[in-house]
Amino acid sequence: MATLFKDVFILDGERERAQRGHILVSKGRIQTLLEISETPPAADKVVEGGGHMAVLPGFVNAHTHAAMVLLRGLGEEAPLMEWLQKKIWPAEEKLTPEYIYWGTASAILEMLATGTTCFADMYFEMDGVAQVALKAGIRAALCRGITNGPPVDGVSKIHRSIEDNLGLFDRWHGREGLLTVQLGPHAPYTVPFGDMEKIVEIAKARGIGLHFHFLETEWELGYIRDELKMTPEAYLRNLRILEVPGVVLAHGVWMNPDWADSLDMSQATIVHNPDSNMKLGSGVMPLDTWLDKNVGLALGTDGASSNNRLDMWDAMRSAALLHKGVSRNPTSVPALDILRMATFEGARAFGFANKGLIREGWMADLILVDLDQPHYLGVNEENLTNYIVYAGSSSDISGTMVDGKWLYRNGVYATLDKNEILQKAREARKAITA
Amino acid sequence: MATLFKDVFILDGERERAQRGHILVSKGRIQTLLEISETPPAADKVVEGGGHMAVLPGFVNAHTHAAMVLLRGLGEEAPLMEWLQKKIWPAEEKLTPEYIYWGTASAILEMLATGTTCFADMYFEMDGVAQVALKAGIRAALCRGITNGPPVDGVSKIHRSIEDNLGLFDRWHGREGLLTVQLGPHAPYTVPFGDMEKIVEIAKARGIGLHFHFLETEWELGYIRDELKMTPEAYLRNLRILEVPGVVLAHGVWMNPDWADSLDMSQATIVHNPDSNMKLGSGVMPLDTWLDKNVGLALGTDGASSNNRLDMWDAMRSAALLHKGVSRNPTSVPALDILRMATFEGARAFGFANKGLIREGWMADLILVDLDQPHYLGVNEENLTNYIVYAGSSSDISGTMVDGKWLYRNGVYATLDKNEILQKAREARKAITA
Repeated sequence: MATLFKDVFILDGERERAQRGHILVSKGRIQTLLEISETPPAADKVVEGGGHMAVLPGFVNAHTHAAMVLLRGLGEEAPLMEWLQKKIWPAEEKLTPEYIYWGTASAILEMLATGTTCFADMYFEMDGVAQVALKAGIRAALCRGITNGPPVDGVSKIHRSIEDNLGLFDRWHGREGLLTVQLGPHAPYTVPFGDMEKIVEIAKARGIGLHFHFLETEWELGYIRDELKMTPEAYLRNLRILEVPGVVLAHGVWMNPDWADSLDMSQATIVHNPDSNMKLGSGVMPLDTWLDKNVGLALGTDGASSNNRLDMWDAMRSAALLHKGVSRNPTSVPALDILRMATFEGARAFGFANKGLIREGWMADLILVDLDQPHYLGVNEENLTNYIVYAGSSSDISGTMVDGKWLYRNGVYATLDKNEILQKAREARKAITA
Repeated sequence: MATLFKDVFILDGERERAQRGHILVSKGRIQTLLEISETPPAADKVVEGGGHMAVLPGFVNAHTHAAMVLLRGLGEEAPLMEWLQKKIWPAEEKLTPEYIYWGTASAILEMLATGTTCFADMYFEMDGVAQVALKAGIRAALCRGITNGPPVDGVSKIHRSIEDNLGLFDRWHGREGLLTVQLGPHAPYTVPFGDMEKIVEIAKARGIGLHFHFLETEWELGYIRDELKMTPEAYLRNLRILEVPGVVLAHGVWMNPDWADSLDMSQATIVHNPDSNMKLGSGVMPLDTWLDKNVGLALGTDGASSNNRLDMWDAMRSAALLHKGVSRNPTSVPALDILRMATFEGARAFGFANKGLIREGWMADLILVDLDQPHYLGVNEENLTNYIVYAGSSSDISGTMVDGKWLYRNGVYATLDKNEILQKAREARKAITA
């Protein structure tokens, strides 16, 4: 089945200027891109853009913990470690595989409605996450959060969670072209250095990507210095973790862009989570400086309990505004860079090829944006990127498509039962906060 | 005609905890507030909340230039003065009273859809703004931006714009209970000190409020020091401007909260415009410190050419997140303070009594929020404020009411012709950018 987008604005994170034209989607791919002057081909389904709709790549939420929608609003306005120790971890103790399945399903409802076509998820009981992502038809990059903890039956928690993560890889990596799996060592302060070394070795030996939290807080900077007795730069160098193809560092608030001058970061991606970093008071990463370095930069929401929205359009707006304000430079962090971070760079980081730009032969993971609204007054091919990032919002999205299939269209979900999911997720919420 | 909100969550900026109950609106007022256990009275119209809708006061956008929606997207990502001089002022030269009317109408479409029931507008050709606000039925606080400039027919521009502003006051102040008018000296760098003194005298003599830009940029701090040869604190003291009842200082990014210890600021309100300040690289005001001082604090979007959204819910979220990130204190700037700033404090600043809280006898300027959505999973009376500020967005609004009348309900405008306005506004945009 083919879908024709007729007379739409075509925009992605590598186009200085939007193109007005037609897009033919077929067999899950962007088959043909045509100029507006060309005659569009026939198709089973036609979306009449009428010159007031835009088609963009779907967003890639490059760092989240989807099922944490179940924990949203717990322990608001508290410091990070207190929030984790007093509110989040005790509630997480009560999570079951079934709760995580329904929580993730509820998160996917939010993400599809706000234009996300791929999310990178670090959590536990991840088989349910894989199942519900496949059911939804959304793309996902999955890892098991590997952490230290007391042994059970003589087997260390680290060992068990590494095995768990490798099983996840064996069972789901590459499934239906929708899933990739990474190793997910949680953070330098939850995974002993020796275990981190082993995980890096496994990743290299088996060709598996890595997704971990790194320098989210200044506290962590002190931990690495005082407990591990090394600089954070030496930590990365000693681990040789940046040599892993497809290594993703979530947050990196306290990383120094100067490191990119002495370390080869060209295979790595840092995921910026502006809203979470602000809300938890973690700090503001120097994104403007990072943009000049040879490193991948993607964008994420983090979990809903520290954001509290799984809305990548919000993340774009926050990133685009925050750094101008803090650096006091209105020319820094241009909208086009933000759009590329929110789409193409996230996909690339997690091993999805041909995704995140609108090019012939690439995956048809697309969103449809309605420009026929007061706040798009004055929009044209030249300024569409700026209108999207600064004036638009996710409520302008009328459709979200993955692999050429509409998963969300005008408020209706094609693959998920919204009412059932909300009911199950509410039950889970009640159970874990009882 | 009476409207009953049956079984809703009732929240405003002075309630630590939302109340589940019923609201009877009649004759433009909140007539009766009832507990959920009480039997609601009969009414012509009933909104069935079913325990999944919330009623909040409408937002007060305490600083904007509504017609600047016509200039949105011009000269993006440029420094403030360059942006003003090269892009904004030349386009403004071409604005006619008719264009300003339609531009403001288009801005009101945006504001009503995003829950604003009152906006404070500083611009020129303000009679059209008054007319279209009355036509829309929205509340507005209007002032004429008073600036220096070359004399015409021997009369200075300052003199003419003061006269213009006073005429505006005489014609519109108090009209239909919807409008108030202030004097609007643009800023210390556009109004000579002697003229500013005269304006303060007029304000005091005639009992008119004042609305002006103050210390938006660090450049302005230098201007006052180098050109006016005084500290900004002395500027305020010498002018005796803080003695004017109802004086509103827009931005105040570079004001120092310590001043509130030596100056009496109890009659003044500072309007924080977080998105505009970030986007233009103006800086970040120390809102967390200001919240401890005896001064009014309200929230605004600024004009759409520097934000670029006229969305007060976005402004709430930005303010709530930004200061936690910059101060690195997740406990600073609580959600409830933000909600009060976005509603009650803005109304009070511009002379609207009994507006901005949900109390019996107060104005029925209300918004209806749909909580039956995935991102409100877990919401209850205790945490509703946090869900609204951190997890919600303006797309959750299903209705906006002023004086007990629906102006916007489920995407439909009651008093404005959306298509006509968009067409006229597009024509105006074309004309001024040709």
